[in-house]
Amino acid sequence: MKVDGKFWRTIWREADGWSVGIIDQTRLPHRFEVVRLTTLEGAAHAIATMQVRGAPLIGATAAYGLALALRHDASDSGLVHARAVLLATRPTAANLKWALDEVASVVANLPPAQRAAAAYARAEEICEADIATNQAIGLHGVGLLQEIATRKRPGEPVNILTHCNAGWLATVDRGTATAPIYRAQEQGIPLHVFVDETRPRNQGAALTAWELKCQGVPYTVIADNAGGHLMQHGKVDIVIVGTDRVAANGDVANKIGTYLKALAAHDNSIPFHVALPSSTIDFSIADGRGIPIEERSGQEVATISGLAEGGRIETVRIVPEGSPVANPAFDVTPARLVSGLITERGIIEADGAALARAFPEHAAVAGNRAIRPAAE
Amino acid sequence: MKVDGKFWRTIWREADGWSVGIIDQTRLPHRFEVVRLTTLEGAAHAIATMQVRGAPLIGATAAYGLALALRHDASDSGLVHARAVLLATRPTAANLKWALDEVASVVANLPPAQRAAAAYARAEEICEADIATNQAIGLHGVGLLQEIATRKRPGEPVNILTHCNAGWLATVDRGTATAPIYRAQEQGIPLHVFVDETRPRNQGAALTAWELKCQGVPYTVIADNAGGHLMQHGKVDIVIVGTDRVAANGDVANKIGTYLKALAAHDNSIPFHVALPSSTIDFSIADGRGIPIEERSGQEVATISGLAEGGRIETVRIVPEGSPVANPAFDVTPARLVSGLITERGIIEADGAALARAFPEHAAVAGNRAIRPAAE
Repeated sequence: MKVDGKFWRTIWREADGWSVGIIDQTRLPHRFEVVRLTTLEGAAHAIATMQVRGAPLIGATAAYGLALALRHDASDSGLVHARAVLLATRPTAANLKWALDEVASVVANLPPAQRAAAAYARAEEICEADIATNQAIGLHGVGLLQEIATRKRPGEPVNILTHCNAGWLATVDRGTATAPIYRAQEQGIPLHVFVDETRPRNQGAALTAWELKCQGVPYTVIADNAGGHLMQHGKVDIVIVGTDRVAANGDVANKIGTYLKALAAHDNSIPFHVALPSSTIDFSIADGRGIPIEERSGQEVATISGLAEGGRIETVRIVPEGSPVANPAFDVTPARLVSGLITERGIIEADGAALARAFPEHAAVAGNRAIRPAAE
Repeated sequence: MKVDGKFWRTIWREADGWSVGIIDQTRLPHRFEVVRLTTLEGAAHAIATMQVRGAPLIGATAAYGLALALRHDASDSGLVHARAVLLATRPTAANLKWALDEVASVVANLPPAQRAAAAYARAEEICEADIATNQAIGLHGVGLLQEIATRKRPGEPVNILTHCNAGWLATVDRGTATAPIYRAQEQGIPLHVFVDETRPRNQGAALTAWELKCQGVPYTVIADNAGGHLMQHGKVDIVIVGTDRVAANGDVANKIGTYLKALAAHDNSIPFHVALPSSTIDFSIADGRGIPIEERSGQEVATISGLAEGGRIETVRIVPEGSPVANPAFDVTPARLVSGLITERGIIEADGAALARAFPEHAAVAGNRAIRPAAE
């Protein structure tokens, strides 16, 4: 997508043919800085410190991290060591394990001299597959926005509300929840996006707002508290969010607060859609009660970072000293509140039977395969 | 209520018998600082800069401000001038006008030499009446908490969720939503309060958390996004919030985000109560659609203040530069989502007929009287 009019992905191979470039997302939205990864340690640090975040991008970075490691040491012990280092960066990010497994399975049976090149090639494929998936999500999802646009006066925008960042910054390109939005923009459909701030980590205010600003999609940042009021007053036509894991029955785990927006959408008869690559569907989990919810550090609620006067990025505490804080990172939106799941195979009803029909190959083997959740 | 073990009100006459003390709420929770008001201008500044906030406290401060002014200039023109200065401090705070009218009507027909003393006396009465009302709210509301406590194992706390600050800091003492909580604490009922941060102004994280900490009521600060998830998991027994205005049919205007919590409470069969002095009921407005919703400065969403390293209170920007921001300050919770209104006359059903029965004297004259909303 565009930054200052130039096209970027969130991760790329540099012109030297081997080092890997990323956008340092911890500096956004205040600074656009690029980091060049040249070592295993650099890649591990980028994931651990959340310079890169979002399930698909974490996977892609881990894949490239393995390539960088193999370039330096392509022995069996080098491979084992590199996998362990990368896997330890984000303990709960199961996508990370998936990407590492993908690359490792390709290189393990090759002679060491061919391993690095094969790892780069597989990392590249992982990136391209992610983009193709997101393009397909955009193609299927744009129909929803088109349909709303036909009911508008000419030039009147379709108003979308989104929560957190399921944008191109969370993926290699295009994003999931944003894919239909960017597609609609390309088709000339007038749009406006309400961006939930998304406390406590503020991915909406920091990342989604920045993305939309760069892309020239009109948007307005709102406090997470405001969405219900806007829906009551007809200001929102559709809600589109991403997801971290979908259960076999269509229950949706996503960033904390998503459930509240789904309730408000339901109460005001506004469609509530979830955009996802089908790899996010976990057929091994019957319903939302089985999805583990990560409790993250209370520091994320107790403090907040931003741009202070003079251009410093500063962290301030906003609760009384020593305040007890709870920070559940995700919640589960029951399938009954979900209007549809926008996947690379089309818009699927949030329902066990519909999901099994749409993804028979996954549904059938669910009992046997490892759990593969996505992760912020 | 208690601060560091000592009893305080939010406003008081100093030992000198004429100057007025307040707590500077803009410094909380990081600093507990007292300001001594000695002039009309000082009182006006305290209201305008939100050193004092909350409907009852704004009214009390305005009343004392008039007394301070009359001490200096008790002429008719002095009275007119002082009223105008105080009224201009918070244009939307109709309680301000009510308190000024109360004091002015007492002093207007007195000789100038008696005016200041009469104004102090009326200001004092306004404060005492506020406390008596809140004590009555506590007495009626505590029954709800007692009833929940009987269903708990011994020592297991009643879990209350609250939004914004309808605590003693918003009133002269005791608070409205907190009144049943403080009463329950005095009766030895084990309690725990989930405190919504309440973006964008963070009255929960800054003020309610501080109050509860000072009082020794166990509490946990949460992001506004977290309440629905906690309710889904049985962590919340009851929601109690305050309100800025209640329509004749029982629709409740309160801090933005209240509606989302009411939806979640309803979806999880958790009682949702609103505590209020009956002066907050506006019988001249038929339903919530008639309640004007203030759109406040986008700066409140775009920036946030807190304690930086080194002990400075610092303001940081958390959105991209020049980001469009919307900031509706209140929302309306439909009466159908409200389990009951805790008033000084008891717990009333959120329903037009029930309200008219409980407050026949107000309901009857609604058509003729001025609108008297409360204000943050």
